[in-house]
Amino acid sequence: MERSLSATFPPSIPDFEDVALAKTVRDRWDNLTKPPGSLGQLEDLVTRFALVRCERLPRLASKAMYVFCADHGVTVEGVSAFPSEITAMMVRNFLRGGAAINVLCRHHGIETAIVDCGVKAPCESGVIDRRIAAGTANFAQGPAMTREQAERALENGNELARAASGRYDIAGIGEMGIGNTTAASALLCVFCGMDASSAAGRGAGLDDEGLARKVRTIEAALSRNAPRADSPIDALAAVGGFEIATMAGFLLGAAASRLPVVVDGFIASSAALAALAIEPAIRPALFFSHCSAENAHRAMLGKVGCRPMLDLDMRLGEGTGAAIGIGVMEAAVKLYREMATFQDLH
Amino acid sequence: MERSLSATFPPSIPDFEDVALAKTVRDRWDNLTKPPGSLGQLEDLVTRFALVRCERLPRLASKAMYVFCADHGVTVEGVSAFPSEITAMMVRNFLRGGAAINVLCRHHGIETAIVDCGVKAPCESGVIDRRIAAGTANFAQGPAMTREQAERALENGNELARAASGRYDIAGIGEMGIGNTTAASALLCVFCGMDASSAAGRGAGLDDEGLARKVRTIEAALSRNAPRADSPIDALAAVGGFEIATMAGFLLGAAASRLPVVVDGFIASSAALAALAIEPAIRPALFFSHCSAENAHRAMLGKVGCRPMLDLDMRLGEGTGAAIGIGVMEAAVKLYREMATFQDLH
Repeated sequence: MERSLSATFPPSIPDFEDVALAKTVRDRWDNLTKPPGSLGQLEDLVTRFALVRCERLPRLASKAMYVFCADHGVTVEGVSAFPSEITAMMVRNFLRGGAAINVLCRHHGIETAIVDCGVKAPCESGVIDRRIAAGTANFAQGPAMTREQAERALENGNELARAASGRYDIAGIGEMGIGNTTAASALLCVFCGMDASSAAGRGAGLDDEGLARKVRTIEAALSRNAPRADSPIDALAAVGGFEIATMAGFLLGAAASRLPVVVDGFIASSAALAALAIEPAIRPALFFSHCSAENAHRAMLGKVGCRPMLDLDMRLGEGTGAAIGIGVMEAAVKLYREMATFQDLH
Repeated sequence: MERSLSATFPPSIPDFEDVALAKTVRDRWDNLTKPPGSLGQLEDLVTRFALVRCERLPRLASKAMYVFCADHGVTVEGVSAFPSEITAMMVRNFLRGGAAINVLCRHHGIETAIVDCGVKAPCESGVIDRRIAAGTANFAQGPAMTREQAERALENGNELARAASGRYDIAGIGEMGIGNTTAASALLCVFCGMDASSAAGRGAGLDDEGLARKVRTIEAALSRNAPRADSPIDALAAVGGFEIATMAGFLLGAAASRLPVVVDGFIASSAALAALAIEPAIRPALFFSHCSAENAHRAMLGKVGCRPMLDLDMRLGEGTGAAIGIGVMEAAVKLYREMATFQDLH
C-alpha cells in the first residue's frame, strides 16, 4: 500500500460475512406473511444492511446526505455545458434549501451536510470546510492535484464518515462540481479499462462538438498522466477531483465504521471505483441507488457487478438518486421489522 | 360497445392532451435549478400527472391504496403454491395492519381500503363489501363468471374510483387472491396474443410440475371459453376474476374523474390490459409502478408500451410495488413544486 497517509489509512474493514447472522435474517424474512423471496431485491438489501450493521433487527431511522462540492481545472478545455461559476451558485442554493437534493431530503427526513472540498469561490458560511484548494489543476496538462492533496482529501472523507457513523444509521453521498463528469469518465477508463469515447457522455448537456472535445481531453489526460488502476491514489491525483477523492475516503471510513452508504450516480460511482481499488473489502457496505442516464454508468455498474435500485434516467447528481434510494432502503427495513409473521395470524 | 351495463358505462374520458398545459409544465421544469431534463422519468411522470389533474401546479398530498380481494375457482386445478384459504387469512392480516402493504402505506402516509370482491369466506368487518360471489367458477371448465357478474364488478370499481376522486390526489391498486396469476396470465394471452407457456409463471412459488399444470389449465380455459380481445368484458367473464374486473372498472372510473392511478404488478396490470381494451383513452391516467419478477410481466409492459418506475424483482402483489411507486410520484411532485428557479438564485 502507498504511504505518507496517516497510520490508520486505509482503515481496516470488518468482516461483513457473518453466515449465522445472514441465516437469522433470511429466516425472519421467510417467516413474514408473504411468499418466500417475494419482496425480491428489498429482502437482499435489508439482509446486507443487517450484515453491515451487525444487527439482527437493524434500525434505519437517522439518515444523512453528504454533498461534496469542488471545482475542476479541466473546465478550461470546454468540456462542460455550464461554466465553473455554477458550482458556487449551486452551493448557495443547497444552503438556502432550494435545490433538488434539499426537496428530496426534506421529503425523506434526511439531514443534509454540504462539504466544500475545493470550490473556486471562497467558502460559504454553512458549509463544512474541507477545502483542499480553489479547484483542481487542468488534468489535460498535468496531474489534477498532488499526491499529498489526494491523500488529504481521502483523510477528510474518512474522518467525516467516522463522525457520521456515531450519529446516523445510513448515509448517502452525492456531489456538485462543474466538470466532474470528465474526471469520472477518466477514472472509469483507468479502473474499468474503457476507452475515452465509451466512457464519456454528455454530462449536464454537452452538444456533439463538446462531447468530442471531452473525449479528446480525456485521451490527452490519460496519455500525459498515465494513471494506473493498481495505484489508485495516484490515479485519483492524476485525473480525479477533490470531491471525488473525498467521497472515496468517505466510503472507506464508512465501511470501516459499519455505516452503510447509498451511492448516487455516475460521479459518486467513480469514487466508489477508486475506493474499491484501494480496499475491495468495503463492497458490502455500498448500496448503488440508481442507473444514471450518463451513458457509461450502466457499463460501470456492470463492471462492479452492482445492480442499482432505480433506473429513472436521472442525471442530476447532488445525491438525488441516493436520496430516493435511501427512501427505498427505509421502506425495506420497515417491512423487515414491522410485518406480521405467520404465527401472529393464528 | 357491449350493453346491459348502466348508461354511464364505459364512462367518457376527458382529453388529457392539453398542449398548452404540457408546455407550461415543461417550461417550469426547465426553469428549475438543474440542467434541463436531468430529472429524467420524474419530469415526465409529473408532466403527465399534471395533464391528468388538469392543473399547472398539481398537489399530491392525499393518497389511497385500494386492495381488491377475491377467490378463484381455478385453484381446484392445483395451479397455486398456496391454498385458497390464504386469501381470507391475508384479508384479516390487512385489517390488522400486519401485511407488507400496511407497512408500506403507513410509511408513505397512504390510506388503505380493503375491498372484498368475492372472497370464499364470509365478509370480514372492516372491508368494503363489493362481493359478487364466494369465488369465481373454475374457468378450466367454463366461464369464470357470468357476463352480468363481470359487469357488476366493473360498475363496482367504477363507482369506487369516482368516490375516491373526491377525496384523493392519487390512488394505487393492488390485489390479493390465491390463483389470480392464472387468471392474469390467461388475460395476457387474450390481450397480448401470447401463448400460455410464455404467459404463465411461478406465481407465489410453483414448482416445475405445478407450472406445467398451470400452462395446461390456461390452454384448456382458452380453448373452452374462446375469449377475444375485441370483446373485453366477455373475456373478463371468461377467464378473469372478480378482483381483476373490479380493478378494471376502477381504472375506467378513475380516468373519467381525473384521478391518476398507480398500477401494481402482474395481476393489476392484467386489469389494466382489460380496461385499456374497453377504453384506450384512459392510458395517460395509468402509472405503472414496477416490473414484477413474474416472468411475463416485462413482456406485458412492453406490449402496452409502458415503462415501470421500479425493477426490484418484487412479486408479492397487495399493492406493494404501487405503494413504493406512489412514494416516487410524491417525491417527483414535490421537486416540481418546491425547487428554486434560476431567477430565485439572483
